[in-house]
Amino acid sequence: MKKFALALAALSLPTFVLAQQSGSVPLERVADEAMVKDEIAWDFVEGITTEVGPRQAGTEAEKRGRDWAVAWLEKAGFENVADEPFEMQTWVPGEVHKAEVIAPFAQPLVIQPLGGSASTGPDGITAEVVYFETVDDLRAAPAGSLEGKIAFISHSMTPTQDGSQYGFAGPARWVGAGIAASKGAVATIIKSVGTDLHRNPHTGGTGFPEGLAPTPAGALAIPDALNLERMFARANGRPITMKLTLTPRDLGTTTSGNVVGEIVGRDPSLPPVLVACHIDSWWNGTGAFDDGAGCGIVAAAALRVSYSGQPLRTIRVLMAGAEETGLWGSKAYSAAHLDEPIGVGLESDFGADRIWRFESNFRESNPELHRKLAKSVARFGVADSRIVASGGADINISRDQGGAIIDLQQDGTRYFDLHHTPDDTLDKIDIVQLRQNVAVWTQVVGILANEAGPIKPKD
Amino acid sequence: MKKFALALAALSLPTFVLAQQSGSVPLERVADEAMVKDEIAWDFVEGITTEVGPRQAGTEAEKRGRDWAVAWLEKAGFENVADEPFEMQTWVPGEVHKAEVIAPFAQPLVIQPLGGSASTGPDGITAEVVYFETVDDLRAAPAGSLEGKIAFISHSMTPTQDGSQYGFAGPARWVGAGIAASKGAVATIIKSVGTDLHRNPHTGGTGFPEGLAPTPAGALAIPDALNLERMFARANGRPITMKLTLTPRDLGTTTSGNVVGEIVGRDPSLPPVLVACHIDSWWNGTGAFDDGAGCGIVAAAALRVSYSGQPLRTIRVLMAGAEETGLWGSKAYSAAHLDEPIGVGLESDFGADRIWRFESNFRESNPELHRKLAKSVARFGVADSRIVASGGADINISRDQGGAIIDLQQDGTRYFDLHHTPDDTLDKIDIVQLRQNVAVWTQVVGILANEAGPIKPKD
Repeated sequence: MKKFALALAALSLPTFVLAQQSGSVPLERVADEAMVKDEIAWDFVEGITTEVGPRQAGTEAEKRGRDWAVAWLEKAGFENVADEPFEMQTWVPGEVHKAEVIAPFAQPLVIQPLGGSASTGPDGITAEVVYFETVDDLRAAPAGSLEGKIAFISHSMTPTQDGSQYGFAGPARWVGAGIAASKGAVATIIKSVGTDLHRNPHTGGTGFPEGLAPTPAGALAIPDALNLERMFARANGRPITMKLTLTPRDLGTTTSGNVVGEIVGRDPSLPPVLVACHIDSWWNGTGAFDDGAGCGIVAAAALRVSYSGQPLRTIRVLMAGAEETGLWGSKAYSAAHLDEPIGVGLESDFGADRIWRFESNFRESNPELHRKLAKSVARFGVADSRIVASGGADINISRDQGGAIIDLQQDGTRYFDLHHTPDDTLDKIDIVQLRQNVAVWTQVVGILANEAGPIKPKD
Repeated sequence: MKKFALALAALSLPTFVLAQQSGSVPLERVADEAMVKDEIAWDFVEGITTEVGPRQAGTEAEKRGRDWAVAWLEKAGFENVADEPFEMQTWVPGEVHKAEVIAPFAQPLVIQPLGGSASTGPDGITAEVVYFETVDDLRAAPAGSLEGKIAFISHSMTPTQDGSQYGFAGPARWVGAGIAASKGAVATIIKSVGTDLHRNPHTGGTGFPEGLAPTPAGALAIPDALNLERMFARANGRPITMKLTLTPRDLGTTTSGNVVGEIVGRDPSLPPVLVACHIDSWWNGTGAFDDGAGCGIVAAAALRVSYSGQPLRTIRVLMAGAEETGLWGSKAYSAAHLDEPIGVGLESDFGADRIWRFESNFRESNPELHRKLAKSVARFGVADSRIVASGGADINISRDQGGAIIDLQQDGTRYFDLHHTPDDTLDKIDIVQLRQNVAVWTQVVGILANEAGPIKPKD
């Protein structure tokens, strides 16, 4: 306890020590306090978005983000803080992102490249655009039919609380460019996979099949995609030609890293509680919703649990590097630590709006603990669920180990207004909802970190 | 009547002739019908935003907009359609619009130049930023104190139904750069004058005092201005340096024009009803809210009035050129036509949301007509008002003549979310509210165009 109390005493951010009373404060009170007083999560997300800003995976900007997070974790009193390096293939967006309709209705459209897009070269390419209402319509296009053309793939996407529409709209981005390229398209543009009406494209990774050279691929802002659709309706069959200029680059192999830090538990022989997020962001926003908030939430929860006394198990924070361009950090962490059992893994990577549903993957194998956890967060407006938690991008290790996973589902109604856009900035975060996240996480992590028995017994 | 009926019969847009029954339809029914059926205003604004897009004053793009409007008016059956040329000084935004914080918190911010901004040159300028919370704080800065610095002017702006906050927040844009330049600033950046939280700067004209050379001046998107404010809070007095690159250009004298068209009345000796809007837009949006919608509304109303029979007075539509960079068209129209009396002037230039208030400048001098008009639109949810109408940017001639003016005030609650931004696109227009505008305008213009006596008797 001594060492631990000292670590906290070193903490120089005064608002972080509100309830610190050497184990005398019940966990419930520490969690409740987060609802009205937590400043820790906000401090993290305000700090990293303001002092660092965008943190494109594998770049110098991401490195500054990791350095910033290391310093923050150390200042906040975490132990064993480190930036564990790994190598990755790094793509950067380049400088020029232009789509200009040339005929029949000349006007510029707002576009940004998709992650993995090839470059058109600085002089751009000019070609006829072929419109597909859905990715399935593109799939049905004959082989070779897009030779020399730009494919334009649309879709419709509805905001949903659970984010489930992403699965339906996502393929336009995930696989559309690859399908179009396989049919001869020289480039692909998509309606942004999102639910807003702002001139801020939604980027994100796109993939090309093995053996197929990547082509230029970009996301139009949704108003611009709607405009292009209207052009097709008004062109009466006249061809629509576009000049597209996108200049992303591959930087080859660079070094990224996973930032880790711990609240060390009383019994280091027990597998730790892993709370994860990712530190990188797309270049176009400042990574507030995705995922500065998530890192703030998990770090705040870990600290708050310690306010009610040193936990039995270690709580390990993992701020994974390079999630956005292929889960590089999460995979590297799993590869490096696969033989070190994790007691339970949780991640926060779906914005900063309120948690509404509790899910675990041990409801059958450890019903008592599941019930205890679910019951403990009902007072924060969180419902229990039969859905089997599968975890997210940042906790590959828990899936790889077949370990215990909890998903604290956040309200995603406006997540896809902001996802991967320039609009992902601090001003979108509602501190009231952010604090509810911290409260729920504190309660859940606090119970888990003090659980003596196996969290997911063999089932 | 013959000629008039023929003109309407020539109309090839089928939805425009819903109610055309040679004078047998009461005005009230034609107005009511607009509430549920009008497609005319939408056709105009959809068409010009899709087929032309941005229409920066004095440029080739504005010319395409005027040509498009001339063709549309002719096809719709207007008579005496013309594009009346005038000369103007033309400013264009150029290609490069960048603001990069260099130290201590390096990251790019989203910026666009203000109309009238000078260029930094393609290599940009790097200087320390000095923060002013309001334009009054800037006014209080000592002479010479900004030598070699970039002034950053903030403000706060609240959405209001009547748009009155624009008067309080607007000076940061209107005069801020001039004040800063007079104190030695090498450039000025402002928090966008707007009420949204999207990464879309609000441009607009800025002015410099006589004899002072313009400096570069740009508007940060509001999230970026908030970020910069936080940087000042976190810098603890360390200087914040920025590299600013804005490359607008002056094109010198170019030719613009005012598009006009008429529904010719039965008595050409009576002064016409002038219904105005402006055809140009800032380059960054497609000019849907500002002011494609306004042009659609006034044209739709003029046509709809004709559905209840040829009006007594001529209804003249004025789609003014080059409003945004200095009311060039409105002033040129007044100069060219000052000796041709206008019976009454109205403009629509405040978005596309519902009309909520009726104002005239003849409530004292012609109370009967004021009451009749106000009463006629109460069924559309429009309130009467004692406010004396002063007209807007597009009807200089009515003010110059001291003539009758009516303001049909639109709800401005979300106007400054979109005003002068890239987000001013068709998708923002709510067709239900657009139709209410057409209904109210049809009712009011129909009464005015059939008024035999002077609309604003000498008072």
